[in-house]
Order: sequence, then structure tokens, then C-alpha cells
Amino acid sequence: MAAKTLDYQKLLAHIAAEVARYQGQGQQASYIPELANRDPDKYGITLDFLDGSRYCFGDSEERFSIQSISKVFATAAAFGLIGDQLWERVGVEPSGNPFNSLVQLEYEAGKPRNPFINAGALVVADILLSHLRDPYAEMLGFMHELTGNSTIAYNKKVAASEFATGFRNASLAFLLKSFDNLHNSPRDVLDLYFHYCSIEMSCTELARAFHLFARRNQLNCQIPDLTSSQLKRLNALMLTCGFYDESGEFAFKVGLPGKSGVGGGIAAVYPGFYSVAVWSPRLNAKGNSILGMHTLELLTSKSKLSIF
Amino acid sequence: MAAKTLDYQKLLAHIAAEVARYQGQGQQASYIPELANRDPDKYGITLDFLDGSRYCFGDSEERFSIQSISKVFATAAAFGLIGDQLWERVGVEPSGNPFNSLVQLEYEAGKPRNPFINAGALVVADILLSHLRDPYAEMLGFMHELTGNSTIAYNKKVAASEFATGFRNASLAFLLKSFDNLHNSPRDVLDLYFHYCSIEMSCTELARAFHLFARRNQLNCQIPDLTSSQLKRLNALMLTCGFYDESGEFAFKVGLPGKSGVGGGIAAVYPGFYSVAVWSPRLNAKGNSILGMHTLELLTSKSKLSIF
Amino acid sequence: MAAKTLDYQKLLAHIAAEVARYQGQGQQASYIPELANRDPDKYGITLDFLDGSRYCFGDSEERFSIQSISKVFATAAAFGLIGDQLWERVGVEPSGNPFNSLVQLEYEAGKPRNPFINAGALVVADILLSHLRDPYAEMLGFMHELTGNSTIAYNKKVAASEFATGFRNASLAFLLKSFDNLHNSPRDVLDLYFHYCSIEMSCTELARAFHLFARRNQLNCQIPDLTSSQLKRLNALMLTCGFYDESGEFAFKVGLPGKSGVGGGIAAVYPGFYSVAVWSPRLNAKGNSILGMHTLELLTSKSKLSIF
Amino acid sequence: MAAKTLDYQKLLAHIAAEVARYQGQGQQASYIPELANRDPDKYGITLDFLDGSRYCFGDSEERFSIQSISKVFATAAAFGLIGDQLWERVGVEPSGNPFNSLVQLEYEAGKPRNPFINAGALVVADILLSHLRDPYAEMLGFMHELTGNSTIAYNKKVAASEFATGFRNASLAFLLKSFDNLHNSPRDVLDLYFHYCSIEMSCTELARAFHLFARRNQLNCQIPDLTSSQLKRLNALMLTCGFYDESGEFAFKVGLPGKSGVGGGIAAVYPGFYSVAVWSPRLNAKGNSILGMHTLELLTSKSKLSIF
Repeated sequence: MAAKTLDYQKLLAHIAAEVARYQGQGQQASYIPELANRDPDKYGITLDFLDGSRYCFGDSEERFSIQSISKVFATAAAFGLIGDQLWERVGVEPSGNPFNSLVQLEYEAGKPRNPFINAGALVVADILLSHLRDPYAEMLGFMHELTGNSTIAYNKKVAASEFATGFRNASLAFLLKSFDNLHNSPRDVLDLYFHYCSIEMSCTELARAFHLFARRNQLNCQIPDLTSSQLKRLNALMLTCGFYDESGEFAFKVGLPGKSGVGGGIAAVYPGFYSVAVWSPRLNAKGNSILGMHTLELLTSKSKLSIF
Repeated sequence: MAAKTLDYQKLLAHIAAEVARYQGQGQQASYIPELANRDPDKYGITLDFLDGSRYCFGDSEERFSIQSISKVFATAAAFGLIGDQLWERVGVEPSGNPFNSLVQLEYEAGKPRNPFINAGALVVADILLSHLRDPYAEMLGFMHELTGNSTIAYNKKVAASEFATGFRNASLAFLLKSFDNLHNSPRDVLDLYFHYCSIEMSCTELARAFHLFARRNQLNCQIPDLTSSQLKRLNALMLTCGFYDESGEFAFKVGLPGKSGVGGGIAAVYPGFYSVAVWSPRLNAKGNSILGMHTLELLTSKSKLSIF
Repeated sequence: MAAKTLDYQKLLAHIAAEVARYQGQGQQASYIPELANRDPDKYGITLDFLDGSRYCFGDSEERFSIQSISKVFATAAAFGLIGDQLWERVGVEPSGNPFNSLVQLEYEAGKPRNPFINAGALVVADILLSHLRDPYAEMLGFMHELTGNSTIAYNKKVAASEFATGFRNASLAFLLKSFDNLHNSPRDVLDLYFHYCSIEMSCTELARAFHLFARRNQLNCQIPDLTSSQLKRLNALMLTCGFYDESGEFAFKVGLPGKSGVGGGIAAVYPGFYSVAVWSPRLNAKGNSILGMHTLELLTSKSKLSIF
Repeated sequence: MAAKTLDYQKLLAHIAAEVARYQGQGQQASYIPELANRDPDKYGITLDFLDGSRYCFGDSEERFSIQSISKVFATAAAFGLIGDQLWERVGVEPSGNPFNSLVQLEYEAGKPRNPFINAGALVVADILLSHLRDPYAEMLGFMHELTGNSTIAYNKKVAASEFATGFRNASLAFLLKSFDNLHNSPRDVLDLYFHYCSIEMSCTELARAFHLFARRNQLNCQIPDLTSSQLKRLNALMLTCGFYDESGEFAFKVGLPGKSGVGGGIAAVYPGFYSVAVWSPRLNAKGNSILGMHTLELLTSKSKLSIF
């Protein structure tokens, strides 16, 4: 890997300078006050190599709402718990529709296209509700193990706000229930789902947690017990489905498996080499961080480190 | 009207004999125990002329769950209360999709195609919840006035069963709420909607209540105050939208404005002449009474009394 | 019919004066030069009672391209020729989608929703191509018989222009062919279809031709042999499907079976009483004549002559 | 790469033995006689490392119709010729619908989701028709250069059969034309497209041609001039869109960029390491080779050589 001779610290600073011209474009998520009140111009990045070297820049240590990035951890947990049975209730195909579309769910008889659209994540939450003794505590425990940091927690106010206003997600949950693809009450599933979304982590913590997917083997974790093959498959899923209906664009321009959240975070991996997390709250029309997308595109172009 | 020289009593008996060969086809609605437990082979009809003559046959005096036929009364009430503002929140076009489809609602940004699909009826219930002091009592009062019978009531067990299992309707209600086309809580709207559906009436009572639409002018009713033009428009709506995605078929074969319910009832009118109600619980794949459809087709063919 | 005591000549003048305020709204069809070059502010109407009285106003004797109104005549011919077999290849339900949508056709496996959307009219043309010896001459002969005027003809330039630019219709024809719902070559079907659309008639000729549907029995016609019941069904179809996805609106506001064309014409009937044709080239967003719609709404409101 | 110590010749034989139990499942494409007449139980594979080592098994030297695999070469040529302008006329997102769906094309105003669904490939053919002097000869020249074999040719009979029966593709072409996203005549575009699909190559030739994508830099080719970044992007596109609505499944189970054809071929690459082509005519319901899919899944599982 000649690329490893690069000065990554300098590269991050250089990229930050270059993406600064997009600063101010887009809006941060504003559907709940807790997200709307963040400074929209925050920017942080952490690049975390498997060999132990780590490079940080900007607001890389400040925690933010990981939102949909939590879907990767929840899916990993469910995949570990019930194996390929998971795919009987949720698919592995890109959706071609916005992330909270009911259309596809109705046409496809209640089986969500993949676990990273909201409908799929609700099914995953339903599975964890059925299979974990304490799905709230155990998910946090999983995050603590992955990061080595036991202060990571839910933001109860965020979870409560989302529950109070998440009519579209409630509609999805009841639709899934009508197809018998939720086994618990929609209300309970929604509450768990919104708690997962409300987890707060910094770029550095996210990047460290994503080592799981970069390494493709698991260390020191109680739950769930994921095989190397399962971790590769989760990487494939992130590549094809991690960015809603912009997944193709991300694969095309960035070329890494990853997952974004409306809190403005994106986490991605180059399997076998590194994980990376970037945070900037302003989003494009598809709900992905504008600066985050540009940052990762520059990172893989300049470092020549992509999977393709 | 030479047709009036027909012996209608004989005609009803003749039609009943003729449709008997379809007896046993189809299934009655079974999604809640209260509907599943009815004798599926009940059959009644009442033909009620504006000139005062009335003809009944079979189980015409037995009450059944009017279900979606209630949507006509609720829409009439809402139209009387808020006039053409109603059509800002719900359309007047046939849906081309099954009655509880979320697809169309999502594509069309939360404005239901018409008030006779479930989504539209939920919006109508929301309007009544906002505009009536006691929407439960006042709707019953409306039915009492239309029929002259104050024993007509909600079946609380039916309403409760539907509420407990109506996940698809709950999904619709939350989707409407997400588009801001419900102003009350989805829970309250659903409860009112399911109560309206649970009203029980006999063929004779339904036919009498439909005199409102056959006469096209209102007598002795406190609420709502409907003009002749409004009543004609409700007839037009019944013709184009009264039978979900079988509305064209009904217009084509029967040629009358009408409305069906999954309880097996159908009520229809020949404006200026008569109203008719038929009841038989077994339904076709589209959710309309098999014997009811055949009965009305024979009635208009043999009497030559249709609007076309 | 007390209404018959109205002075209809005065009524038409009055209506024309009233709708004049909408003059200038909307655009005439411009996708082919022959339609774009007409004076957009033409306005004519003919009201033709079955009792022999006839009232005309404005440009009622000037011929225009009847376009989709031809679909009614073609459907009548096909229904007469093959009877209910017609409905195995085309439905009788409103479409809920714009008139040339491929979506519904694809979802519903190549069976058009009804004969008045373009896909359905192509199937009808295919049937006439298979069942008539000379489908070009015989359709004109049918029009000559209905109007008593043998100068009615195709506009070959209009037909050729539409053929050269009708890519969407060609797409529909090939899609139907892929589902095996065209039995002749798409090219031949398109040519026939565009010829039918290019027929030119005046309001007075159209109104006279629509006597067929107002009378509901056929006089002096060689082809096709339509029963009274078939003619009623065609009226029902016009009511539910005659105005594309504005059919509900037309039924709601006007309350008559009818059919519009992008040439700006609308023909309608009050079965048992009269037929009416109106022409004004400027169209609304749904492709229906703006002044034509207003004219008919006023006609049925003021005369109180609608089917509902 | 410890993996390189594997005995690949033995591995291929082992995989062939293992997938033999699926032999007989599925049907070969039969919509044209030329495809229906091939022995459905052919099976060949060629694994071609960038380091020069090559491993073949079974019918690896027999030519078959590459069909949709040609879309990758055509897209590469168009991308080389007009660069990112290509993406103004065709997207880079997975489609979520079957490969020849008109629905998505209509909803998305004539811009195909990606160049590997039929609609997208028609746009690509249109571009080559506009930008190459002789798009028939030059595409073959491109294949000759990539393989070093100048006997690769079109199968004129296959192209003619597809042209004569390809109604669905004709429908797509006219729909694209109606949206002005074809600049040449639909007929000419279809002819070129079907010629590209009719190219015949063996596994060994295909694998060699795919070295272009494995190497990610171009050698000795006149047209088109592709950069390393462009080749990576084509790999990303193959990964997200190469297998129609089974792309996610392929990424999930196999983890390589690739492209399948209804002739039963699949070509794939592990960028930086190898290309591979497999051929077996029997297809699953999604139109992908059953044995081919199993073969590649075993290859990446057993060799541990996938991109994830």
C-alpha cells in the first residue's frame, strides 16, 4: 500500500479546506427542535486505520445524533442473533425509492426492501425486541464494547420528540403490522427504533465502532456473534443500500460501504484498511450530509483507497 | 313511467329466485368475529319509491353492519357543514386502486382521491370531529331523522374489534397525519370512523335513509343543511366512486349511484324515483356483495329503470 | 319535463356570455401544427333534443378535429361487432391516471382500464382492423349514417402529423403488443387510430351523431348492431371514464355522460332527452376544453337537466 | 495475497462439482429460437488473473450470446466519448424494478435509472449512434482490441430475431423518444442495441475483455479513452446495478462488480486482482444464470477474494 506513505493529517486538513466552499449549502434537519438547534456549520472527521494510526480534524470529538447510522448496528445485532432468518423478513435489495416510502412496502406485501430504509429498520427493531432480554440496555452495551466507551447513551429528549412527531414512521409500523411483519406492538417497536436513532456519538467513536466492519471479525463482544462472512455481507449491504436512493451515487463517487444519518453523520469503511466517520449537519435533498459526501469523495480520490 | 305498471313485489321474488344460483359463492367478511359470525346466506331487499310505495323481500327487516355505506352519510354531513371546502381536503375522482391503498395517497401528497375510499372517509371523520359538538351522537341523530327510527345505534363490539385489528386503517390515518390532512389525533379519528362503520340498519331502514339522495332535497333534518345541487353531486360521487375499483363495473352493469359495505349491504338510488337496499353477506374479491350486485343488475335490466 | 318550457336559445346565449370571462385561459393543443393553427377563441354549441328541436350558438357549424371523441364511436362499433368479448381485452373502470399512462398498463398486464384512454382505444382500433373489411371506409360510413352527412372525412394531414410525432402512443402500442393485446402490427393499428382521431365534424354534426346514445336505440345503421342495453352501457362508460382523470369532476359538476377531445370538443347526452356538443380549443391542464366544461356545467345547473 | 497460494485449477473443478446439483433447475431464455436452441446444460468458467495466470474449466472456449453483458462495453465506450455528460441522460442508481420496466421511466420523466437496464442501454446506444462514425464496426473493433481476437462478431440472426420480437424494447425506445431522450430514430437505436446484444464471445474472451475493469487502466485501445477514475466508477455501477433487481443479492452473496446476460453469461472483476467469466444457460426468475450465480458465490467464499 504505497498510499500509506501519504500524510493523512495533512490530507484531512487539505480536504477540509477544499470542501469549505460548499459550507452554507443545504439545511440541517429541523423536524424536531433537538436537531434544529445544533450549529449547522460543525465539521469533524476521524480516519481510523486498522494498523492503529488515527487522524482527526475539526469537531471530531463532539457527539451528535447518529440517527440512521444506528441501523447498521441494529442490523448487525439482529443478523448475529437470528442469522439468515433475518432475510425472510427483510430484503437485501436497494429500494429505488425515498427512505420512508410506503409504496414499495405495499406493492411488496410488507417485506421491506432492505434493513436500512425505515421500514426495514422497524422490522429489525421488532426482532431485537423479541430476541433480546433488554433491547435498550443491550444495544448500548454493544456500542460500549465496540468503542470501549461506556458513556455513550440515548438522548431521551430526541427519542421523545421523534416519537411525538413521527407520523410517517408510525404509518410504516402499522402497515408492517397489517402484513404481520411486526410481532410486537407498533408503539413498542417505534419507541425502541427512535431510541436507537437517538444514540449520540462523536466521529472518533463512530469510526472506532466501524472497525467491526473494516476488520470483518469480531473482538470481545458478547452480543451478537457475527462471522467474518456476515460482516462482509453487511459491508455489501451498506454499499448497495446505505444512502437511500443516493446509494448508487455514493458508490459511484466514493466507492466505500457506508451509512449516513440525518444528524449529518456518515460512517464508512475500506474493508481490511480503515474506517472513517465525518460529521456536518447540512443535508442535501436526499437527506445526506453535503460536506460529508464531498469529504469522502475527496478522501478516496486523493488517497486512491476505494474498493473499486 | 310505464315501468311503474310492473308488479314490483313479484319482480323482487323473481329476482331473488334467479340470483339464488349464485348462493354459496364468495365469503363473508371474516376479519373480525362479529362479521364472521353472521349467517352468510341471509338475503334481503327493500325497494322504496318516492311516491310512497315500498316492496320488501326476504331478510329485509334484519339489521346488519352498514360499514362503508356509512361513508355516504358522513360525507353528506361534512359537505353540509363546510361546503366546497371539503374538496380541498379530499378529491372527487375514482381511485383506480383498492379501497385501502396507501400508494395513491403517498403519490398524491396526502389528499385522498375521494371520500368513499378509507383514506377519504378518515378525513371526513376528522372534519366531523372538528365541526360537530358531539360527532357520535349527532351522526346517530342524523340517521334517526332520515329513517324516523331512533333505535338505530352503534355496535360497540364491532367498533372495538375494528379498532383493535385495523392496522391498515391506522397506517392510513398516520400517513394522513404526516401530510397534515388530519387535524385531530389519528387515534380519535379512527375511533369515530370505526363507530360510524359499526352502525346497524336493515334494508328497509337504509332504503328509507337513501330517500335523501333519491329526493335530492332535504326534509326535517337539523344537520346538515344540504342543497339540491349538493345532493346531486353526492349522487354523482356514488356513481363514480361508490364501489372502490369496481365502480365502473357497477355503473356499467347496474347504472345507479350507490354504495356498498363489507357487511354485505348495498344501497342505491334512481334519482327522482326510488331508493333500494339489498343485503347478502358473501363478497366478491373486490369486497362487494355478490348477490347484491346481481340483484341490482337484474332490477335495472328488468325494470328498465337506470339513469343511462 | 317542466324544464322544456325554458327558452333554450336564450339560455345558450346567456351561457356563452357568462363563460366569456374564462376566454383566454388555457392553451389550445399545439403538439401538431394542424391543431396549433386554429383560432383558439372559437366557441360553438349545439343542443339537440330527441323531440326534434335544436338550438345552436356561435361557431356551431364549423368543423374541428374530434380527436378522442372518436373513441366513443370506435368503441360502439367494436361493441356492436364482438359484444362482451370486447371486455376481455379492455376494462370498464376509470383509470385514475393521465390518459396516456403506461404505468397502469404495465401493472395490469396489458389490459387497458377502459376504451377511452389511449391504450384502450388502440385495442379497439386493433379489433376493428381485425373485424371490418375496410375499417377506414366503414367508420366514415358509420359517421355518415349517424349524421346523415356524407362529407364527413378524415384530415389526412392531421393523421400523418400525429403518426410522425406520436411517440407516446407508439410506445403504448408496442407495450400492448408485448402483452399480446394487439393482433395486428402496431404500425397499422396506430395509423388507423390516428385516422379516427382526425375526423372533422361540427358541433351540430357531433350532437346529431350522439343522438345514438341519447335515444339508446339504433336507426338505419348497417354496422354495428347495438342493443339498447349496450348503448346504456356506453353511456355509463362515458360517465365514469369520458374525461380521463377529470371524469369524477365532470360527473360531479355536470352530471352527464360525455367525451372530450384535445381538439377542444365535448359531446354529451342526457339519455332520453337530448345530446349536446360544445367546441372551444383552449384546454385545461387535464386536456379538456375550459369553456366547454363551464358551458356544460351551466347548462345542467340552469336547466336542471342532469342524470343525478 | 496468501490466497494466491490456492490451487485455482482444482478450485474450479471443485466448484463445478458442487454446483452440479443445481443442474437442471431453471430454463434457458427461449423468446428467440437462436437462444432456445442452445444446449441448456453447457457450463464453462475462466478465471483470469492480472498477473498473467489463467484457469479454465468446462465449455470455457465456446462462444455464446453475451446479451446484456454488452451493456458494460457500450457504457464504457459512451463514458469515454462524452464523459460525465453521459449522466445527464442516464442515472447511476439501482432501479428496484425489473430490467425492462416502463413504470420507473415514466415516473422519472424519461431518464433511465442506470445504463444497465434496457432503457439506459438504449440511451447509451443512441449516444454511440450520434458520436461514432461507424458504431457497428467500432464497437467490434473495441472488442477485438480488448481480447486481441478479431474474429468476435455479431450474430446477425440473433439481432434480427430480437428486432422482430422485441416489442417491449420498442415500447421503451418510443417512450424515451417521447421524452426526447433519444436523438436518433427509435428504429435505428433498437437495431444497434440488438446488434450489441448479439455479440458472441467465450468465457475466456469475456474474462480477458474484463481485464479492462480489473486493471482500471487502459492499454492499446483507440476508442474510448477511459481514465482510471472512470473505470472505477464503472465497477461501482456494475456492483450496484449489474444484476437488475437482484443486484443487492449478488453484492451480498458474491461481493464483486459484475454483469449478467440472458444468454447465461456472467462476467465479474475483483479490481486489482482478476476477472472471471462463467456461462450456463439456465436462468432464475430474475433472468440471471443459476449455476453462474452459485459458481461465483463459491469462488469468492472459498478463495476469500471479494471486495468487502
